[in-house]
Amino acid sequence: MHDVQPIPATVAWVGDAIEIIDQTLLPGRLEVIRLTTTADVVDAIRRLAVRGAPAIGGCGALGMVVGLDEERPRSADEARAALARLAERIGAARPTAVNLSWAAERVRDAAYGEPTPRAIRDRALAEARRIVDEDREACRLIGEHGRAELGPAASAILTHCNAGRLATLGWGTALGVVYAKAAAGEPVRVFACEARPLLQGARLTAWELAQAGIDVTLITDSAAAGLLHSGRVHAAVVGADRIAANGDTANKVGTFSLALAARHAGVPFYIAAPTSTFDLATASGEGIAIEERSGDEVRTWQGRPSAPEGVAAWNPAFDVTPHDLITGFITEIGVIHPPFPIERATPGRSTRGPRG
Amino acid sequence: MHDVQPIPATVAWVGDAIEIIDQTLLPGRLEVIRLTTTADVVDAIRRLAVRGAPAIGGCGALGMVVGLDEERPRSADEARAALARLAERIGAARPTAVNLSWAAERVRDAAYGEPTPRAIRDRALAEARRIVDEDREACRLIGEHGRAELGPAASAILTHCNAGRLATLGWGTALGVVYAKAAAGEPVRVFACEARPLLQGARLTAWELAQAGIDVTLITDSAAAGLLHSGRVHAAVVGADRIAANGDTANKVGTFSLALAARHAGVPFYIAAPTSTFDLATASGEGIAIEERSGDEVRTWQGRPSAPEGVAAWNPAFDVTPHDLITGFITEIGVIHPPFPIERATPGRSTRGPRG
Repeated sequence: MHDVQPIPATVAWVGDAIEIIDQTLLPGRLEVIRLTTTADVVDAIRRLAVRGAPAIGGCGALGMVVGLDEERPRSADEARAALARLAERIGAARPTAVNLSWAAERVRDAAYGEPTPRAIRDRALAEARRIVDEDREACRLIGEHGRAELGPAASAILTHCNAGRLATLGWGTALGVVYAKAAAGEPVRVFACEARPLLQGARLTAWELAQAGIDVTLITDSAAAGLLHSGRVHAAVVGADRIAANGDTANKVGTFSLALAARHAGVPFYIAAPTSTFDLATASGEGIAIEERSGDEVRTWQGRPSAPEGVAAWNPAFDVTPHDLITGFITEIGVIHPPFPIERATPGRSTRGPRG
Repeated sequence: MHDVQPIPATVAWVGDAIEIIDQTLLPGRLEVIRLTTTADVVDAIRRLAVRGAPAIGGCGALGMVVGLDEERPRSADEARAALARLAERIGAARPTAVNLSWAAERVRDAAYGEPTPRAIRDRALAEARRIVDEDREACRLIGEHGRAELGPAASAILTHCNAGRLATLGWGTALGVVYAKAAAGEPVRVFACEARPLLQGARLTAWELAQAGIDVTLITDSAAAGLLHSGRVHAAVVGADRIAANGDTANKVGTFSLALAARHAGVPFYIAAPTSTFDLATASGEGIAIEERSGDEVRTWQGRPSAPEGVAAWNPAFDVTPHDLITGFITEIGVIHPPFPIERATPGRSTRGPRG
């Protein structure tokens, strides 16, 4: 593999607090910040200091422990009530990515039955760490399955937004496929859509690929259709925030356009995501809530206006790509298609109570 | 019609010079600048101080007169040589919009046969003014034909980049349809794609529609597919920089994506352009040269980096929308379809010599 520069972990548990790279400052500044309260965790997720479905899942899971430590429950009942409140509060920080509520609820459900506040806290931390470890391993497997699926001749990959190290707890989902290719010595280059309005493609994907020594070319989101039509791209691979039972997929706004352009150009279009991103309780994309963010993200850049003051703006963070535009879903259990062969309890159920 | 604020003309002939709104400063500052040399004209076109296919056509036509005045030919032969040089130099300022070389060559050809330098200059100015007047009238007719084609129920219009007052010598092509609706008292609202990288939709379309009191909502280019899918848009109408004989259309990068999304959503997708934008000498989109601009337009915004320094970027200014995605072409002679019923000498022929 190429010479990879040492980058701090996207999300880490250090000295009873969460440390994250503040991604709002990249690529200008690489800064690690500590989250020591539930409010810190929710704020970091809301303002996208940590983003990417698997990464906010991991951050939310560890955030359950931060919350318990902050609340200092004096009995097991108090701790259980705290678990329920925290799962609700953290899970609601962002509505679209299913991994967040899935991870918070998994920690809640795992720790719920323990007999003491201490045991509940320890079990919560163990479960959160397991979620982090599982995601790292899922990324590795996604990379390998994706590499096998695409084949060594598929050297030019188009991606959108950031589904890499910075979006996960491992080496990424969509970019995991790229890193797996590089690690295997296969030729690989990436075309990265910038991902307006917050430019995660320009700021994060271009940055982390350059750090890893991988050839990356930045394009505006609008340039993708012409690029795909030109024949210079062998496959499009993107991440996901929530995948419905029928395969309809919510991902960063612009994914739908890419899928349409890939289909028109005859280029395969893949979703790369861990099974924690699948929400089998939601039948189709129509059931997925799409977060709408402030119009200021469209009207301004780095505090400077790029549009007339006060003009109305509609700013959905995600869109839903219909399943029939998706060639396959690259997961840690292989490349799958709907109906998905996912056995375990599905995330995204509207559970409120504890699970064993 | 809504109360329209007085805005200076996009391109005007004032006191033997060209006056233009410097569109690079909008929406922050409304400033009129004077172009008094050929270098001024070419520079203004290249750096997009004046942009939009019809507007640069008009500016290029008047630029022929500016060039003659600058060169001060002492004989008719010198003036004719100057006309040929100027048409070449101005026509090459930007390669994709056919109107630019068409207009410069039309002035050259009209003035070529006059007997004296003075008569050549006067004839050149008269022809340039005719081009300006014709475009103003073409915009008016495009608006009316578009209004009739869409019908009064089509009140929500999606557009891309800027094909309005600021892109033409009249009230616009795509936005001409919007202004015609407003003038007729029909309900109309506009969704404006911002048009990365230079944000002509955010900076110019949102600005001029707000000035005209028309309801406008800004979106990122990537949000268009989801918006179209939602059923909230009745028609997409955009301008064009060059339309090939088979209907393949070069327009601002991102137009191709919009057309694909409109087709998928079952929303009609129109090109609005004067017949001067049709290049019947070019058989299909494959023959259209696409201008590639500096990657800095993608890597930076208002001088500030939005991507890692030195990252490679591919920045095509235009893309080509295949004719089969286009519902119709709204022109001053009506809504037409390929093969186009355009009788007069076609622009974009590779003429080098004079025409009568």
